[in-house]
Amino acid sequence: SPSPASPMEAADKFMEFPHVSAPHRSLMIDLVSAVEERLGSQLLPCALPHDVRYYQSDAGSARGSLYVRRGQGPSKVDFLLGSWLNCQLPTGGSLNITSLSVYLNNSTDAPNFLFELIRSSPTSLVLILDLPPRKDLVTDPDYLSTFYEDTQLESRRQVLDKLPEAQPYFSSALYIRCVVSPTAIMLRIESGAGKAERLDEIVENHVSPVAKEVLGIWLDKCAAVDRNVEEEERAYLGRRDGIIKRKTIEIDLGSSFPRLFGPEIAKRVLDVLREVYGV
Amino acid sequence: SPSPASPMEAADKFMEFPHVSAPHRSLMIDLVSAVEERLGSQLLPCALPHDVRYYQSDAGSARGSLYVRRGQGPSKVDFLLGSWLNCQLPTGGSLNITSLSVYLNNSTDAPNFLFELIRSSPTSLVLILDLPPRKDLVTDPDYLSTFYEDTQLESRRQVLDKLPEAQPYFSSALYIRCVVSPTAIMLRIESGAGKAERLDEIVENHVSPVAKEVLGIWLDKCAAVDRNVEEEERAYLGRRDGIIKRKTIEIDLGSSFPRLFGPEIAKRVLDVLREVYGV
Repeated sequence: SPSPASPMEAADKFMEFPHVSAPHRSLMIDLVSAVEERLGSQLLPCALPHDVRYYQSDAGSARGSLYVRRGQGPSKVDFLLGSWLNCQLPTGGSLNITSLSVYLNNSTDAPNFLFELIRSSPTSLVLILDLPPRKDLVTDPDYLSTFYEDTQLESRRQVLDKLPEAQPYFSSALYIRCVVSPTAIMLRIESGAGKAERLDEIVENHVSPVAKEVLGIWLDKCAAVDRNVEEEERAYLGRRDGIIKRKTIEIDLGSSFPRLFGPEIAKRVLDVLREVYGV
Repeated sequence: SPSPASPMEAADKFMEFPHVSAPHRSLMIDLVSAVEERLGSQLLPCALPHDVRYYQSDAGSARGSLYVRRGQGPSKVDFLLGSWLNCQLPTGGSLNITSLSVYLNNSTDAPNFLFELIRSSPTSLVLILDLPPRKDLVTDPDYLSTFYEDTQLESRRQVLDKLPEAQPYFSSALYIRCVVSPTAIMLRIESGAGKAERLDEIVENHVSPVAKEVLGIWLDKCAAVDRNVEEEERAYLGRRDGIIKRKTIEIDLGSSFPRLFGPEIAKRVLDVLREVYGV
């Protein structure tokens, strides 16, 4: 079985995105860098143990990396969470998932940031890009206008939705459909047999500019804005955020992680995530 | 200008659905009849004034019909609301909208029923079929499992989603996207130039059976089930239902009705709707 990464290796592993295509890697690095450039001074360095910064299954068929920076002092950021995952598929191909999310704390009720690319074959990609709301939009139409209508997020969704290779993606988990916003970009992009290059071109020329724009909107209109949040509201936000985090871990990782990495590594990684999430 | 319908004519006008194709009409009649058969004994007769049961624009280019039956006594039904609308389009074609919704009152928190067909040309149809939730599904995962997971509504959505002529429909109103459930069937079905018959075949053989199944689920699992709703919860439901009703009228009818029917008729119909909605 492969030897574990040394602490020094593990520290840099996240930003390497070693298993994805060049445009996919560039996009991830650009997004993480953009957040760190704008919010870095409010963030503590990543303090994760090296065996969750980089981890791999005993059989060597799956590996992953976690990266977490918590907000400090008066920052509105709760934490930034980056991750990647690579695993060999029984079919011979490999699955690559990369994600970046930034959670705000309850000093603000502004939306979080969420970006995820799931490449399940050279020609097949699922894209999730959203500013998930932190309140019930049904009872709070003002929140809907402020963060989703006035920001014109729908126009960005439509840009990608119009790609001939794209179709709306419906998560099999109904709960995930509930936590995203009405302008969430959830697409399955299929470039057709043998056309892996076209998919990378789409990532570079279409997904990347839209993702950067949406992140820019989030940095300007969500992360940087002071919102007046009363005490009672903070309790509500804390409770709602907590339910989402618990359910997300359960749905996203609860079943797949033990299967991919075995119970021991899965427990190690999930324990760290639960601790970061505070749930 | 056309003479107004007599009171006797107006009384029957709703169930005539005079401007839509035979399969479209049959489906509407079947759905209304199914609700009335199951819940009719709990419903008061329609008591709307004849000039909203049937109304038309002065120029005669648009006409519509409303039908409302309120719940009585210990019924969980707030009201049943049916409507149709027909108007000539500047392009020469016509637009037909038919809808049936049933709203429950705050003795229960179970979902409402919503069905709408928008036929904007002989070959183009928008279908909205949903049990809109009455609570924030994000903070109430049990409600999500009870009404949406355990009922297998997603499998019905997928049946229609798989039609080659169907694609997901995104309402231009973000608020409407927020009020529907994660298993909402929102589809645009286009049968292609010259293939109006194929669209009617889809209504008859695909939309109709699924709509009846979903209505059956609603009748069995929502309208017929006793839910324990505490006093505080009732206040919340009343508030949330009220916000949705106000926003729905505003979005759905507020701007289009005055344009189609002129200010006087629009006010008459909207006033009746506001009174029924209690907003």
